[in-house]
Amino acid sequence: MAHIDLGVDETLFPGINGPMRFRPETAKPLNELAEFLLRGPLSLTAGERELIAAYVSGLNECTFCCSSHSAFAAAQLPEGMPLVDQVRANLDAAPVPEKLRALLHIAGAVRDDGRKVTTELVDAARAAGATDVEIHDTVLIAAAFCMYNRYVDGLATMAPADPARYEQAAQRIIAEGYHS
Amino acid sequence: MAHIDLGVDETLFPGINGPMRFRPETAKPLNELAEFLLRGPLSLTAGERELIAAYVSGLNECTFCCSSHSAFAAAQLPEGMPLVDQVRANLDAAPVPEKLRALLHIAGAVRDDGRKVTTELVDAARAAGATDVEIHDTVLIAAAFCMYNRYVDGLATMAPADPARYEQAAQRIIAEGYHS
Repeated sequence: MAHIDLGVDETLFPGINGPMRFRPETAKPLNELAEFLLRGPLSLTAGERELIAAYVSGLNECTFCCSSHSAFAAAQLPEGMPLVDQVRANLDAAPVPEKLRALLHIAGAVRDDGRKVTTELVDAARAAGATDVEIHDTVLIAAAFCMYNRYVDGLATMAPADPARYEQAAQRIIAEGYHS
Repeated sequence: MAHIDLGVDETLFPGINGPMRFRPETAKPLNELAEFLLRGPLSLTAGERELIAAYVSGLNECTFCCSSHSAFAAAQLPEGMPLVDQVRANLDAAPVPEKLRALLHIAGAVRDDGRKVTTELVDAARAAGATDVEIHDTVLIAAAFCMYNRYVDGLATMAPADPARYEQAAQRIIAEGYHS
């Protein structure tokens, strides 16, 4: 049960959905940020960006966010959940393009501490073809999920165990996007 | 120098200001979130909320954000910078109301890992008079600064050394708020 009375049935509004209903004033910019970062115009696909979100949420061990964004990535990547699982298990061995691997390494560094993003990590991403905008958005996606993960877990919200719940949510996000 | 070409003179647009000019699409929700969390209607004063932001940014050792929000807190708290310094140096000994101290302990736990927010920490805040909305907003302020701090440091932006720069920024925030 959540630390505060969110005023919703948590089995119907699990994870971040409860706090977003509790505080619509903050839900609006939180959704707008996710919508632009994960689904706005960018040379990385929505699936690749959801993979960055899932990877960071996995490192932060946030069950609700990691399950959600793994499902959202899987639903939008041709390789589906097996690739998400490979990236999360062993990034260096996962069959992803070198540019995406380099960006995921930057995301992992941001997750640990912004100061861990070295010139070497940025140079490696650039050598693999990453643009300044892609590097910027990767840093901000990783940073934003350090917020979403803490928001969800800091309030002790509920994470459904049934994978079907996250697959259903993926279809809703693909159809409707992130919105209040 | 920042990891990417932000297209601005960093001495004029230090810290988060450069990335916000580089990517106005994300600056908008980032500013809206800060404006509501730190200056919107709430039973905690703007100074108290800026103190939470400064405290978290200090724990994350983000020079630009900690200097900024310490100055913003100092400018809006009757006790000024001495209280900010005391809270950052030794929260348990600082002369703050017990409710604020309990909320700062929650913020420190969120900063570490959302799962570190225990029922005991929440009960202590509630016993000191904190409401569910105050607890919610404290968790989200702390989580949001884990994002802002990583955004600023993950891009290796510049932090001015001169305290006067942050005092000037405080006057601008008080007069105009957070906006794109």
